[in-house]
Amino acid sequence: MTFIADANSSSKTHSTIKMVDVSLAERSYSIIIGSDLLGKGASYSVADLGKSRLLIVTNSTVAPLYLEKLQQGLEGYSHDTLILPDGEQYKNGETLNLIYDALLQKRFDRGSTLVALGGGVIGDITGYAAATYQRGIDFIQVPTTLLAQVDSSVGGKTGINHPLGKNMIGAFHQPKLVIADTATLNSLDDRQLRAGLAEVIKYGLIDDLPFFGWLESALPQLLQRDMTALAYAVEVSCKDKAAVVAADEREAGKRALLNLGHTFGHAIETAMGYGNWLHGEAVATGMVLAAAYSHHLGLLPQSDLQKITAMMVAAGLATQPPAELTADQFMAHMAVDKKVKAGRLRLVLLKGIGHAFVAEAVDEADLRRWLGGYLAV
Amino acid sequence: MTFIADANSSSKTHSTIKMVDVSLAERSYSIIIGSDLLGKGASYSVADLGKSRLLIVTNSTVAPLYLEKLQQGLEGYSHDTLILPDGEQYKNGETLNLIYDALLQKRFDRGSTLVALGGGVIGDITGYAAATYQRGIDFIQVPTTLLAQVDSSVGGKTGINHPLGKNMIGAFHQPKLVIADTATLNSLDDRQLRAGLAEVIKYGLIDDLPFFGWLESALPQLLQRDMTALAYAVEVSCKDKAAVVAADEREAGKRALLNLGHTFGHAIETAMGYGNWLHGEAVATGMVLAAAYSHHLGLLPQSDLQKITAMMVAAGLATQPPAELTADQFMAHMAVDKKVKAGRLRLVLLKGIGHAFVAEAVDEADLRRWLGGYLAV
Repeated sequence: MTFIADANSSSKTHSTIKMVDVSLAERSYSIIIGSDLLGKGASYSVADLGKSRLLIVTNSTVAPLYLEKLQQGLEGYSHDTLILPDGEQYKNGETLNLIYDALLQKRFDRGSTLVALGGGVIGDITGYAAATYQRGIDFIQVPTTLLAQVDSSVGGKTGINHPLGKNMIGAFHQPKLVIADTATLNSLDDRQLRAGLAEVIKYGLIDDLPFFGWLESALPQLLQRDMTALAYAVEVSCKDKAAVVAADEREAGKRALLNLGHTFGHAIETAMGYGNWLHGEAVATGMVLAAAYSHHLGLLPQSDLQKITAMMVAAGLATQPPAELTADQFMAHMAVDKKVKAGRLRLVLLKGIGHAFVAEAVDEADLRRWLGGYLAV
Repeated sequence: MTFIADANSSSKTHSTIKMVDVSLAERSYSIIIGSDLLGKGASYSVADLGKSRLLIVTNSTVAPLYLEKLQQGLEGYSHDTLILPDGEQYKNGETLNLIYDALLQKRFDRGSTLVALGGGVIGDITGYAAATYQRGIDFIQVPTTLLAQVDSSVGGKTGINHPLGKNMIGAFHQPKLVIADTATLNSLDDRQLRAGLAEVIKYGLIDDLPFFGWLESALPQLLQRDMTALAYAVEVSCKDKAAVVAADEREAGKRALLNLGHTFGHAIETAMGYGNWLHGEAVATGMVLAAAYSHHLGLLPQSDLQKITAMMVAAGLATQPPAELTADQFMAHMAVDKKVKAGRLRLVLLKGIGHAFVAEAVDEADLRRWLGGYLAV
């Protein structure tokens, strides 16, 4: 089941189509990256969907912008559409039930395919519905935000939030295909674009020092939505993520590095109420906290901490947690995070830019003390 | 993670412990079958659970009978207990949330293990919670009904019902171990015992003619709860099921045979309201319907149909669908069943006792006509 870009297309936009493969044996798939892939000018065909019925799941913000374009691309395929409300606060069991209801009311069978058109919330919840409807059906990711294109649409993590913790209910379920149309990034508001850049920066911090260096100089172009720069950022991010996912699909080891900034970040998101801080914003602040704590432990040089903080500032991202959050609240929220193992807190920390590692059994008393001091400043 | 029966135990009940292996590469596990495995007399030890925290999930009927025994066996392990209401009508999203809430409120992490103590409903919903909590944690099945011991606890099908269809939400998630204590069958009421026998008979019908022959003579002993006969029935059923599951874990082919009687049966269960007909009762009637329709198609000899009907009667099981159910209602409910493929109804039918097969693209008009006539009699 693949979307095939037509190499003979006369459209100039097709000259820059990139393919990134996620190698996972029989669950392998491709990420197609390019500008105007969904537009009328693009000439792609959907192959191998066979007689599969499609349900496009999108939200009320994305639908007016891209639903019609996607439907044009799917011409000839039987499809229905479900439009959900927009926002992280809807990534829950009630919204999930709307997808199940639509599938059952319209009698979608096991051979059906879900198509997630939207950002990370739409991708996560639609993917989870695909993972669990009739014990698993196919799905395709069509991410329309930078964050979804560089992170959440790739790697098969699907799920919903619980009032007591983010992404606590979920499943590993790989998509059959990811179509990242960088032209959709033109409609993102600045805040969403910056939030997506947080995850882009993350790949540099984890294990890609050259990419971090490129970002230091390319950030102004990215913020100005230079399509070539954005496409390159998406491509490198997807390649970096695909390599980690291929090595450790179910997060038994290395994949945990992708959680850099996420344990602090999830605490901020949960404490502030889903949707008030964007995921990328919380992760940006979380990465600064991880870097600062790494420095406190004597692991990360002051100069690297400064570069990281400067990068977030340049990207217009917050570097300070919300003033109302106390160290105790941080610790309580972090204790339920999935990164906890056998009751001991694990954190992704940094020994340098491009050198993240998983710290097992973090000294919670020390972390609490340090957080208290950090937050008091 | 295994329960190890202690070969040096002085308990006489241990002389008849049987082990059946389910071979699924890294997801392989054992089914331990024996009498009084959970009792004080049994001397088993839990190995390899390490520091895993356990949450025992059971219901208000089973808890007073077996919870304390199980807890004795788990002495030394950190465990909590959650007691759910009893009944198929609680196999839904709301009850599932009670498990998630307990796990999150008590901060169970990814290394935790769920223990399902009860019948098929407890096993299915607990297994599904294990499949989806933090994207998947371990679980152990401790089935206490005949139906759960011979069928639902083995093979990794987990899930919940939706108002529009049974088991429509779910996941494949194999347990780490199944402990089938046949002594628990003493507390089953007769109706539950008979319902369980329906699934036992199913294995004979699918591909085990000798077992069907044994059942014809052993049925009186089984109904009188002869422990040796029951243990043998559980063992052969588990072996038959394990062989099918090992060959086709995710029901791409052969495993569909295990659905003999289930498409008709699910229609009865859904139409009558979950919990009014027991699953095994509905499946028994469904198997008679499948046999009768096979006979109508000229596939199954009259003599075999009579033997099958006689077996159900001898087991005290219903052979007639509820009088209020019309052919149209049957067809409507069967259309949403998971066995539907690319919009075409599939049914497991019989060419003989011990010779089931999957009929693709059943002629729905013919089936509807035949059902109309059958129900009118």
